[in-house]
Amino acid sequence: MNPDLLRGGRLGKLSPESIDFTESTSFDMIILEPVIKINMAHMVMLAKQGIVDKAQSSSCLKSLGTIPFNLTLDPSLEDVHMNVEAYVSKDIGQISGGQINLAKSRNDQVSTAIRMALRDYLLKIISSIVKVQTIILDKSLNYLDTVMPGYTHLQHAQPVTLAHHLIAYHDALQRDCDRLLECFNRVNMSPLGAAAMASTGMKIDRDFTALLLGFDGLVENSIDAVSSRDFASEAVSDLALTMTDLSRAVEEMVIWSSFEFGVMDIADGYASTSSIMPQKKNAVVAELIRGKSSTVYGDMIAMITMMKALPYSYNIDMQQLTPHLWNSCKITLSSLTLFGSMLKESSFNEKRLEYLAKSGFITATDLADYLAVENRIPFRTAHMIVGKIVRTALEEKRTFKETILDNLSKIIKDETNMRIKVSENEINKILDPKRSVESRKTKGGPNKIMVKNMINNRKKNVIKTKNWASSKRRQLKSSEDKLKETVDEIVGGE
Amino acid sequence: MNPDLLRGGRLGKLSPESIDFTESTSFDMIILEPVIKINMAHMVMLAKQGIVDKAQSSSCLKSLGTIPFNLTLDPSLEDVHMNVEAYVSKDIGQISGGQINLAKSRNDQVSTAIRMALRDYLLKIISSIVKVQTIILDKSLNYLDTVMPGYTHLQHAQPVTLAHHLIAYHDALQRDCDRLLECFNRVNMSPLGAAAMASTGMKIDRDFTALLLGFDGLVENSIDAVSSRDFASEAVSDLALTMTDLSRAVEEMVIWSSFEFGVMDIADGYASTSSIMPQKKNAVVAELIRGKSSTVYGDMIAMITMMKALPYSYNIDMQQLTPHLWNSCKITLSSLTLFGSMLKESSFNEKRLEYLAKSGFITATDLADYLAVENRIPFRTAHMIVGKIVRTALEEKRTFKETILDNLSKIIKDETNMRIKVSENEINKILDPKRSVESRKTKGGPNKIMVKNMINNRKKNVIKTKNWASSKRRQLKSSEDKLKETVDEIVGGE
Amino acid sequence: MNPDLLRGGRLGKLSPESIDFTESTSFDMIILEPVIKINMAHMVMLAKQGIVDKAQSSSCLKSLGTIPFNLTLDPSLEDVHMNVEAYVSKDIGQISGGQINLAKSRNDQVSTAIRMALRDYLLKIISSIVKVQTIILDKSLNYLDTVMPGYTHLQHAQPVTLAHHLIAYHDALQRDCDRLLECFNRVNMSPLGAAAMASTGMKIDRDFTALLLGFDGLVENSIDAVSSRDFASEAVSDLALTMTDLSRAVEEMVIWSSFEFGVMDIADGYASTSSIMPQKKNAVVAELIRGKSSTVYGDMIAMITMMKALPYSYNIDMQQLTPHLWNSCKITLSSLTLFGSMLKESSFNEKRLEYLAKSGFITATDLADYLAVENRIPFRTAHMIVGKIVRTALEEKRTFKETILDNLSKIIKDETNMRIKVSENEINKILDPKRSVESRKTKGGPNKIMVKNMINNRKKNVIKTKNWASSKRRQLKSSEDKLKETVDEIVGGE
Amino acid sequence: MNPDLLRGGRLGKLSPESIDFTESTSFDMIILEPVIKINMAHMVMLAKQGIVDKAQSSSCLKSLGTIPFNLTLDPSLEDVHMNVEAYVSKDIGQISGGQINLAKSRNDQVSTAIRMALRDYLLKIISSIVKVQTIILDKSLNYLDTVMPGYTHLQHAQPVTLAHHLIAYHDALQRDCDRLLECFNRVNMSPLGAAAMASTGMKIDRDFTALLLGFDGLVENSIDAVSSRDFASEAVSDLALTMTDLSRAVEEMVIWSSFEFGVMDIADGYASTSSIMPQKKNAVVAELIRGKSSTVYGDMIAMITMMKALPYSYNIDMQQLTPHLWNSCKITLSSLTLFGSMLKESSFNEKRLEYLAKSGFITATDLADYLAVENRIPFRTAHMIVGKIVRTALEEKRTFKETILDNLSKIIKDETNMRIKVSENEINKILDPKRSVESRKTKGGPNKIMVKNMINNRKKNVIKTKNWASSKRRQLKSSEDKLKETVDEIVGGE
Repeated sequence: MNPDLLRGGRLGKLSPESIDFTESTSFDMIILEPVIKINMAHMVMLAKQGIVDKAQSSSCLKSLGTIPFNLTLDPSLEDVHMNVEAYVSKDIGQISGGQINLAKSRNDQVSTAIRMALRDYLLKIISSIVKVQTIILDKSLNYLDTVMPGYTHLQHAQPVTLAHHLIAYHDALQRDCDRLLECFNRVNMSPLGAAAMASTGMKIDRDFTALLLGFDGLVENSIDAVSSRDFASEAVSDLALTMTDLSRAVEEMVIWSSFEFGVMDIADGYASTSSIMPQKKNAVVAELIRGKSSTVYGDMIAMITMMKALPYSYNIDMQQLTPHLWNSCKITLSSLTLFGSMLKESSFNEKRLEYLAKSGFITATDLADYLAVENRIPFRTAHMIVGKIVRTALEEKRTFKETILDNLSKIIKDETNMRIKVSENEINKILDPKRSVESRKTKGGPNKIMVKNMINNRKKNVIKTKNWASSKRRQLKSSEDKLKETVDEIVGGE
Repeated sequence: MNPDLLRGGRLGKLSPESIDFTESTSFDMIILEPVIKINMAHMVMLAKQGIVDKAQSSSCLKSLGTIPFNLTLDPSLEDVHMNVEAYVSKDIGQISGGQINLAKSRNDQVSTAIRMALRDYLLKIISSIVKVQTIILDKSLNYLDTVMPGYTHLQHAQPVTLAHHLIAYHDALQRDCDRLLECFNRVNMSPLGAAAMASTGMKIDRDFTALLLGFDGLVENSIDAVSSRDFASEAVSDLALTMTDLSRAVEEMVIWSSFEFGVMDIADGYASTSSIMPQKKNAVVAELIRGKSSTVYGDMIAMITMMKALPYSYNIDMQQLTPHLWNSCKITLSSLTLFGSMLKESSFNEKRLEYLAKSGFITATDLADYLAVENRIPFRTAHMIVGKIVRTALEEKRTFKETILDNLSKIIKDETNMRIKVSENEINKILDPKRSVESRKTKGGPNKIMVKNMINNRKKNVIKTKNWASSKRRQLKSSEDKLKETVDEIVGGE
Repeated sequence: MNPDLLRGGRLGKLSPESIDFTESTSFDMIILEPVIKINMAHMVMLAKQGIVDKAQSSSCLKSLGTIPFNLTLDPSLEDVHMNVEAYVSKDIGQISGGQINLAKSRNDQVSTAIRMALRDYLLKIISSIVKVQTIILDKSLNYLDTVMPGYTHLQHAQPVTLAHHLIAYHDALQRDCDRLLECFNRVNMSPLGAAAMASTGMKIDRDFTALLLGFDGLVENSIDAVSSRDFASEAVSDLALTMTDLSRAVEEMVIWSSFEFGVMDIADGYASTSSIMPQKKNAVVAELIRGKSSTVYGDMIAMITMMKALPYSYNIDMQQLTPHLWNSCKITLSSLTLFGSMLKESSFNEKRLEYLAKSGFITATDLADYLAVENRIPFRTAHMIVGKIVRTALEEKRTFKETILDNLSKIIKDETNMRIKVSENEINKILDPKRSVESRKTKGGPNKIMVKNMINNRKKNVIKTKNWASSKRRQLKSSEDKLKETVDEIVGGE
Repeated sequence: MNPDLLRGGRLGKLSPESIDFTESTSFDMIILEPVIKINMAHMVMLAKQGIVDKAQSSSCLKSLGTIPFNLTLDPSLEDVHMNVEAYVSKDIGQISGGQINLAKSRNDQVSTAIRMALRDYLLKIISSIVKVQTIILDKSLNYLDTVMPGYTHLQHAQPVTLAHHLIAYHDALQRDCDRLLECFNRVNMSPLGAAAMASTGMKIDRDFTALLLGFDGLVENSIDAVSSRDFASEAVSDLALTMTDLSRAVEEMVIWSSFEFGVMDIADGYASTSSIMPQKKNAVVAELIRGKSSTVYGDMIAMITMMKALPYSYNIDMQQLTPHLWNSCKITLSSLTLFGSMLKESSFNEKRLEYLAKSGFITATDLADYLAVENRIPFRTAHMIVGKIVRTALEEKRTFKETILDNLSKIIKDETNMRIKVSENEINKILDPKRSVESRKTKGGPNKIMVKNMINNRKKNVIKTKNWASSKRRQLKSSEDKLKETVDEIVGGE
């Protein structure tokens, strides 16, 4: 098709700089396949409804079937839509080829195509989350007994186990997954048939094209159908939350693999060295997941502000949304994949974790709880007594235990006037992080049985998500088969 | 409570600037009521489990019951949590008062309280959306026959009706509402019992406190429970999308109420004049909704980036999330309310809309479609023929109709070699925007019957959302009654 | 170079997914030329300092001189730096080739190279602003007498001229330009010689390499030199402000070219039509400038949050900054270019502007001012009197003038008890927008002499900026010559 | 003033919700004082120009002089501007009071007032940066010899000193300071006299009011003057960069004060403990600086996107900018203050730093450099040889030195076929981090003399900034005096 055919009747030539500035072919490749399918489904429907005669529709469908998915797009034709029409028109002549855009418009077609490409990406991302979750749960099983310091404010707080900690990663990802599933349902609705914005006077069948293209329903109001991109902004918001969760986990890995922490050894396949410092082993994959999360934030803010205060219905600003959308999908998918395999292949230094869990004052709360529960010292007072012991230990550079043995009774006496003596045996028990972990049998706590329960339940849930994804894939496959079949009927029946 | 009680045992004084810098009392008022209820539910549970004896628990519960919901918070006590403990300790002495924080921590308490305040806000916002939707649907019924230009790129595209257009607002809000409903389900889960991050060694019953506080379930893993704020970032992302939808509608109102458009008359109650130009009537409420959408974007990006790369579990950065959260909730709620009443009270200039719909070339597509369908001219060629007529009309400064009558046959002949003559009568019909609208009977199109169907279906759906909100409110009310009852049992039974 | 040479001694293989995830070759092409020059300047300096002998340095310099600026970068070599070393090593053997990274590191080299590519972009953008400003000023000269409504809140406020209005665009761009000039000064400082982060024990001469590469000075502290990217974030912040200014101007063009306003006719070269609505002429370039501004906002937020809370010194997160940086530079440069030529080639409908300036109540302030100054009615009262007349006119659907003639004296009497009669002649004068514009002789006001003065002064200033840019270009050219010369000396002198 | 006076003539009542939604009094307090001064300066000018007679101007000036800077603003009067007029009108009657807004408008007044409040904030922030820089430089002097590991990727890279490291903080802040200085120059320009947007027909003297209010010049074009807020967005962008620099330094402090690093002891005045874990000492001030940086990012994105695509000239969206502006100023100012005093009062564990600098492989580059320079092994080969030694040491769990002594000669032989023997003495020297630091005498490097030079030069520069700030303060004070004087003349001369 002559680039001027579209505008020729109406407008003079586009300036060469404008062509570069306004074209979308550079990022349209991802929707080429959907666009071809949409044109097929639409043409099948036009034929079924008697709007286009069998000969023309058969000829269009044949031609559409020959477009390679890696067709080189010509920027001077503006976008993928015009490239497809041009291909067909060149192939079978403009008289028939010109029919493919009858009763539809780029406005509804592009929204339909974006939704199709996005639902595929969402399915991939959801499956990737499922894989990461499986890796986490399997990994956790190795560390049910690995006591480590739990942190708040990057300070030792209370002892937990590595299994317990890793499950927190899983649970954050579960909410990310749930959001993406819900988003999928809003994405997988068909705007096709809204045409430019007012639908069409021809007797098209929107439900039929929706069915052939695997959609769950319609974006009904034709103005809304071409005006809305909240489904895309929503997807990227969800991805931003997912990347935030990953960024937190990889931040831990960067810190954990420092010389000073020394609790994690990143697998070589995910580290690099320096061009000048041969000793370096840098957790570059972890750092890049952290860094790329910001790119997704940027995509999100770009997309949301791009839609700000745009009057209805379609405005071409919306064209610039999609590079951000695909970029965020790509980054999140690769980040999840790499996060999973990095975690799987890396190892933890269990001895170092246990050493750290025994150092310092990590069971101070256990002592305060003991005083509160066993000796009926009010909790706030018990808390203050233990605080004084910690301070004394730090000032005198002695261990927690020594300081307790020498000072506990006296401080209790000073503060409460109670005479209490706790035996060294008892102190040993209280200060033991393993005992502390064991004692925390609350739902969701680090006690081994609680953790095992959590793992088992999550494994079941992961299978549910897997099944959901499989059933969605089957639905898409079956609509694709149906489309192929109806196309073959028309083309074959000619 | 002495501000030093908490830190006295352990740390020297906080610097005065640090007090101002670190305190959260200035934005904690909104969670004071939830914090009191949490303390009550927790104490009831401690009593039930035999962890605190009846006398102490009764005394704590009595004291908690006397805290006014407008208690002045003392910044030197850091936050609402310590203010509540200080109140109770002052009231009943530190020995009993100190018990209220046994087996819980600020870390789980604050997350629980934020969720309780947020779920209330979400319910209000959802109800407000429902109200706006009802106003839109009722308003639409007045404009079923009001033909207007549909716009793309702010250019006349094709005729629609005002009713059809307004429903697009409704449908965008429906997706916003659906997202918030789904978010509610993630918000309404209880982290209580996670304590500092490792749960507790005492035999608490997390399910029981969750029940008393109206939650639907637990945020199970105790590390995840205190580390996660994705529920809050998700809420604000959803609000950002809602505000974007509103910003688009109010942008139209600003444009529509300009002298040049002149199609909308904003009710006086939502406009202001100028301090210097007495003739001005400025759509300030519309403009401010547009402007405040950016504040919500800012809140969103602040929240998401605040969580970026924070290691597990609690870090005090998270304290700064909540001013953003409440700010966005407040802005969105008031924007929705004002948007609804402004729309309700404002009026449209139907004659001007119809005049605009008849001006220009808005039914050019209808002519192209006519040529394609009735005369079997290939669509792309028909498109180009009509383009040439438009260009001729503009160049010769004549009307569309005149130009068609004088040039159509000739141009068709030139382009297709076909001899086609369309009668003036036929042209009149084709160019009539009312006929055009009538003809678009596609699902979701502007045809009156289609629009009526849409309104009816949406009215039913709005009732569904209303019912959902009512049932959630009943659930919260009933858990509140249950809490009151169990408190009364303990306090009364003493 | 074997991809494993760098890591081979120290680490196992990078996983294939990690290669894709961590490579920067896909966006490093823009710094290939700077990297080659840096290597040359560095080698010249090493030779001058006697660190590398003449034979080796000559051989390295010769090889560096043969690298094509479109060299295909191999992703398995991680980045452009290793690709260059690999090229040279392959060319002249590893013994000599391995010397090029002596006493420097990728860390200082990449920062140096980014600064070199960025300063070129900044010069281009500044020159582009100058071009747009020249177009604006030239265009303004055509519209010195074209009265139009000045708007606030998109409502008619007071009459101005189109020349006066266009100068506002110029002035906003002037501040954008000033910011970019100042940014240039921070960008054009050399970090080279900081090496990995601790400089080097070899006797290098940082000032000499800075000179050869056209820098104005050093980023002195070696830790700061490799850790900082604020220069890049600053540049993109400045570009975001520039795009915001453009987005405001193009928003006006979109509105102005609507049917309802009808005051601007976008040149065909910057508009598109519709694939389905042949009458459409959409201001797509204007819309895309508006839309792409959001992409720059996204880049900005991505970059700033990427640096958030990164510990010193280099972290590989910083690698992900540059795609955002180049993207924003590219978008802003093309937006400026297109904005300028679109404005130049488009035309304004002066008659329509003047018609609008006469419609409505745009000179209401003039009447209030008249009453205040000539009749000593307090300003606020005069404002209210005119407000009542406007309201009466609207309610009675009469013109402003008619309503004044019939009601002014009476309303003045009611409000002030003064008896004042203004003649119809006087009213005509007051209401004439041309007279209003003429009267506003305040500095910066729309009076023709004031506007001419503004244009003249700005023309002089534009030349100053041009001269600045030329002198910077000369400086860069002369340092390039110097580098070439010293290279030739070594290579020739061999 | 009756709230309806402004709108009474023209519009019906504002709805109560609209009052809340549109009022700006809740954040206008900060510009009350500037607004009063502007009214004074403007009235002095009106009197000087003979536009208002002496009696009225004297009476207005007297009344303005009695407005308390903590005046309670009435939201029903919309904003601070109307509150001030209402105050004066109530005080001296509407006839005189109504004159204060003659020949100006809220549009120019608000922009003038924001600039006055912002320039004060900028001066405070600049002075605060100077204070922090002084603390950093003084602190550095204590740590000239304190060797520590320099980090890249949070991994040990090469030895530096703490003084060297701290100067990197200083240098980043210097660029922040420079940006704010430049921003000040754009802020301190007067838009007063632009009135609503078209200036005024009265013979006002804009230069005179600019002088009385301490401005450096005019924002000349009257449309630009009321439309532009880039000065405010620029300020917040600069603050966002400043907060990013602070966030990086505090991130280090959080990490450094962890148990595992143990190299920094945060002063008690900037730390908190836990409500449940008495041993905790959390670097809450550092964490909150990190967290609050995100709030400034949010403010920035809110402001920039609020201005996006706003048509000229004033739109009330711009009213919502200022809460973000003041919030960011406040946060940055307090963050700087706290950062400075926290750094000043906290201490470093020099022994631990030196221990860490000796651990691991931090001088591996020194060994590679030694082989390259002393033994003429090509740098890349030397790098690989040392990499192999590191790997061997890690695999055999032996120290770097032992592994070198046992393996160096052999590996050199294998890789280069050279026979090289390095004595244990030599190895000791190479591996000594102190010697390594000493050897790095490059400009900007860690060598003590280099670092001392840097400190001295920076001390001089800090004084320059101080002097600049003082001179700006004097200029503002002197214009204030001049204003007072001229007011007194008029009031006294009555």
